[in-house]
This record gives sequence, structure tokens and C-alpha cells, in this order.
Amino acid sequence: MSERHLFLRACWREDVERTPVWLMRQAGRYMQAYQEVRQRHSFLEMCKNPKLAAQVTLQPVERLGVDAAIIFSDILVLVEAMGMRLEFHEGFGPKLGEPVRSMQDVERLRVPDAEKDLAYVMEAIRLVREKLRGRVPLIGFSGAPFTLASYVIEGRGSRTFRFTKEMMFSQPEAFHALMEKITSAVIDYLNAQVRAGAQALQVFDSWVGCLAPEDYERYVMPHMRRLFSRVEARGEVPVIHFANQAATFLEKVRHAGGDVIGVDWRIPLDEAWRRVGYDVAIQGNLDPIALFAPLPEIERRVRDVLERAGSRPGHIFNLGHGVHKDTPEEKVAALVKMVKRLSAR
Amino acid sequence: MSERHLFLRACWREDVERTPVWLMRQAGRYMQAYQEVRQRHSFLEMCKNPKLAAQVTLQPVERLGVDAAIIFSDILVLVEAMGMRLEFHEGFGPKLGEPVRSMQDVERLRVPDAEKDLAYVMEAIRLVREKLRGRVPLIGFSGAPFTLASYVIEGRGSRTFRFTKEMMFSQPEAFHALMEKITSAVIDYLNAQVRAGAQALQVFDSWVGCLAPEDYERYVMPHMRRLFSRVEARGEVPVIHFANQAATFLEKVRHAGGDVIGVDWRIPLDEAWRRVGYDVAIQGNLDPIALFAPLPEIERRVRDVLERAGSRPGHIFNLGHGVHKDTPEEKVAALVKMVKRLSAR
Repeated sequence: MSERHLFLRACWREDVERTPVWLMRQAGRYMQAYQEVRQRHSFLEMCKNPKLAAQVTLQPVERLGVDAAIIFSDILVLVEAMGMRLEFHEGFGPKLGEPVRSMQDVERLRVPDAEKDLAYVMEAIRLVREKLRGRVPLIGFSGAPFTLASYVIEGRGSRTFRFTKEMMFSQPEAFHALMEKITSAVIDYLNAQVRAGAQALQVFDSWVGCLAPEDYERYVMPHMRRLFSRVEARGEVPVIHFANQAATFLEKVRHAGGDVIGVDWRIPLDEAWRRVGYDVAIQGNLDPIALFAPLPEIERRVRDVLERAGSRPGHIFNLGHGVHKDTPEEKVAALVKMVKRLSAR
Repeated sequence: MSERHLFLRACWREDVERTPVWLMRQAGRYMQAYQEVRQRHSFLEMCKNPKLAAQVTLQPVERLGVDAAIIFSDILVLVEAMGMRLEFHEGFGPKLGEPVRSMQDVERLRVPDAEKDLAYVMEAIRLVREKLRGRVPLIGFSGAPFTLASYVIEGRGSRTFRFTKEMMFSQPEAFHALMEKITSAVIDYLNAQVRAGAQALQVFDSWVGCLAPEDYERYVMPHMRRLFSRVEARGEVPVIHFANQAATFLEKVRHAGGDVIGVDWRIPLDEAWRRVGYDVAIQGNLDPIALFAPLPEIERRVRDVLERAGSRPGHIFNLGHGVHKDTPEEKVAALVKMVKRLSAR
């Protein structure tokens, strides 16, 4: 490419002719073409078969015209590679083997060699890059250490994070040892994805919003700082840091690192950007459930997000969380068109 | 009582000799004495039998020495009285009959006569008052309209509130009609509780944190303002407004109403109080999972909350959410003692 793609320019806060748009979980169950693949394969099979993963990764690029692809995978494949059993049960979410609750349990986990142990992800990335032929950039991703740790400790999703916090508060050494091990795994995983061809990275801290600001600072932030400082291609490959429901400690999230800060819809985008600082880009932040509204109401909300972003370069339009599985596909397509039309300079 | 109780004085921001303390869900499964009752009766039976409800209401007063009792009940009994079937299944949470999804469905609901249709709550309040003999005040409560509406629309708990928001965004008239009906029911319910003997009231908006600030302002706040303005005993019976995970729109929560604003642990108490204004009292805000920590760590956190509250009158110590069912009972008892000891002027 002679010129960098729109999406990458926005990540670096360079001038753009319009706001780039992609959507978290844009390759997913709301889409008919995805469902057709999913009917014949389990979710994990789709993650582990590079051809299938590449196929569904490309669907939203071809059908919606989003400005970036994100490799189809699940944040928990890394945890599986660390030595935990991983299963997905319909309507229940992920379930992991023996939860990690002590220093001994932490020692049981290993830092995988991502290139070898997650070769299927790297192969999927190479395949997607080949098929994209430069049309749009490809985003690689990982769960953030806290979010991965919470699954590892709870053994499944949680509302209260009772075991996670109990370990944090009662066995801080074991908790930090776990975070350190996971952070090392994430660093290697992200670097391997860049070597395989990822042109941007996103770190998903989906569950970090369960923490008090002080606990984020003490138990999570140091690991996040190490993570961001060890991305080998930093300064070349932009890293998006999405911290869900973290509005009360956004400044700390920003301090932790990232070239782009992703925010959910609970905070107005202008307020979020002001708080993280204009020397980083911002991504977000339409409520995913707004896509169930009639088109004029969706348009009103899109305009609002774009107005809050203003004319300053560095806004990437996205939802504040993943596309909901029941979302009407035509609404998602309409959203992408709308952002392109309404943001044209 | 010749002098108002500590807890009530704190609600009115009067001088106190120490910080009063009570805990959301203080009568609950973490307590052995509660479990003994629960083994012989279903949860709903306990709510509907005034003697049993009174018995468990008093347990934390007698065993923990909290500074207020809160009537044992569930926010969904009001919804049942509005005409919806209500069931509780072990490990699954509440399940309601036919969800409300249209104006027709809204019309099916009725505004109950709380004194008659929820006579068992009123009777439990009278019984508790009798048995308390003025030792500590009794708090009555209700779910807030949005939280109740979300159960009514989803038919159960939800993570995404997909149907609630869909109705909000696509059928705003039906949504507002539902909110209005529920608000009328809540007003009557709270007033009846005061007539039965409740000396303070708490309104729980447990799920409102799923909303963007603008949506709170448009779809929820007007109903909340009506609610607080219609509490007949206002100015005499303090009303606590607990809005969970609402840190990004605390100012609007305060504007909605309440003599005391309850906050969760995601925001430091001093910041929360500054934002809602010092002309209301504040309640909170220890992370309930902190009770799984060793005692010195609990103490450190209690001190932090008390220091953030400072010496200004008007702080009521509480958790930022209900006591978790697995909490060691002795930790809860230790917490209450600790607050009393550390806050003594």
C-alpha cells in the first residue's frame, strides 16, 4: 500500500476523509453467512480451523464494508494453550477445567509458545491477509490479563467475581504470579500475531469494570503497563486498549497503555476523550442494543457519537461492546453505511 | 424515642457520635440462622409469611448489631401483585410469566392496592416494629421503576437488557406507559410501608447502570422525579436512592431525588459525595467481596471508606451491593464492629 489505510491513520490520529468503522464481534451469530458455517461446525472448531476462521473473518468485510477485519477467534484459546481444558456449551458460555485458586495451581499453568501452540491462529491470520489483498487492515487480539485471570480463577463467567477477588485480596502473591504468567503469555501471543501479519492489535479487558479504581491500580495496572511496553512493533502497529465499564478509572486505563482507548456507551464519547487525553485516539461507543431501534433513532445516536468526537482526528467508530446475537443483520449493514455517510468530511 | 436514632440522624446529616452501619441483604443466605429457616421454607414463602419475614429481618439486628433493620422481602413481590406470575428456581434466580413487550401487555398490568395486595409485607413491618421496640429503625424498600421494568420486560435477569432497551428505543410510548404504571405502584407501595411503620425507605435501582447517561435522563429520570415527589412522608422519613453502577451519571441520579444517595464501590466515596453534593447524605461503599479478605485487609478498606467520608455528618456505612451468599458470617460481624470502633468520634 502506498498510503496507509483509513483505519490505521485514525489510530495514529492522522487526517482522514471520514471516520473509519468496524464492530466488535462483527463476525458473529447475527449474520446469516456465519450461521451457515456455524451449523456445520462447533464454535471451537471454527476457531481452530484456519480456513473456517479466515472465511468468517472476511464475511463482515465483504457484506458490511467495515474498515477493518478482526481475526475470528476467542480470547480463551490462549488459556487453553496455557494448559486448561476449554469447553463451550450452547446457551451457557465457556467452561474451563479445574479453576486456579492457589500458587500451586498457578505453577501448573505454562506460558505457551504462541507460534507453535496457537499455530492455527497464526495460519488464519496469514490466510486472511492473503485474501484481503490490502483492502482493509487486519486486527489481531487478545484478552487482557485480568479478564483472562478471572476466567481461569472462576472457571466460567461470573457476575460477582467472588473467587477472583478473594484470591486478589487474600493471596496477592499468587494473584500477581498468575497475572504475570498470563501477561507473559499475552505479550508473546500478540507479538506472534504481528509477525503472522496482524496490522493492529486490540486488548479486550471485558470484566475489569468489576474493580474499584484503587484495586485496578494495585492489582492490574502494573501488568498492563508491562504488556503494552513489550509489544515489539509498538509505534508501528497500533494497539487498542478496550476496558469495558471502566469509566470511573479511565485515566488509569490510559496510563496503563494503548494508542487507542476503546470505551463503552456508559460514558459520553467527548467526556471519555477529554479524560484519557487527546494524545491518544478513541474508539466507540454506540450501545449495541441501539441496533434494535428503528433506523431514524439509530441515525440520531450515530450523529450524537460523531458530534461528540468532533473534527479532531483520531476517532474510530465502534459499538461499546460486541454485536448482540439477535441483532437484525440489515441494521448492522445500515449502521456501517450511516457512519460512512454522516462522517464524510 | 426522645432522640432520633443514629441512623436517622445520619440520613438527615445531623451530628452523630459514630458512623451508622447496615448492610444490603444483611438478612440472607450467608447467615446460619437464616439458613435454618430457609431449609424449611421456600424463599417466596419466607417473603409472604409475616412471622418468618419478621424473624429473619431481626436476625442481623440481634447477631450483628447493625444500626438499622430492613424488612425482609424481594423487589419482585410488587410485580407479582401487578399481575405477573413469579417463581424462584434454585441457582437460576427469578422467573416471571409472560414478559411485557407491547402496549397491550402494559395494559394487562394493574396498579395494586399495596395495603391489601401486599398486606403480608405491611403485617411483617408491623411485627418487626413491635419486636424491635425502638432499638433501631426499620427500613422499607422497593425496586426502582427501571429495575422492575427490566424484569417485567425480560421475564428474568439479563446481562444485555436487549428486550428492555428494544422496547425503550422502538416503542417509547409503551415503555413510558409501563414506567408510569410501575412508578404509581411503587409510590403507593412505599407510602403503605410508611403507614405500616417503616421509618426510612430505600429505592433499589440495581440494573440502571446498563444505560447511557442520555437514556437515563430521557427514559428514567422523569419517573424517578415523580416517585420521590410523591412520598407522602417526605421530609420526615428519609429516602435512600441506591443506583447501582451509575457512576457516569451520578449527578442525574441525585437530581432524580432522594435524601441519601447510595453508591457502589466502583467510585471512591469522596468523589461520589462531591459529585452528588453535600446537601444530601451518602451511603456506601465497600466492595462486598472485600469480606472474603483477611481481617487486616478488611480493616484497611473500611478505614479508607471512613476517611473518604471524612468528618462531615451524613455518611451511612454500607456495602456497594448486597452481601454475597458465600461470605463468612464472622467476617460480616467483624465488619460491623470495625465500623463502630473506627468511626467513633
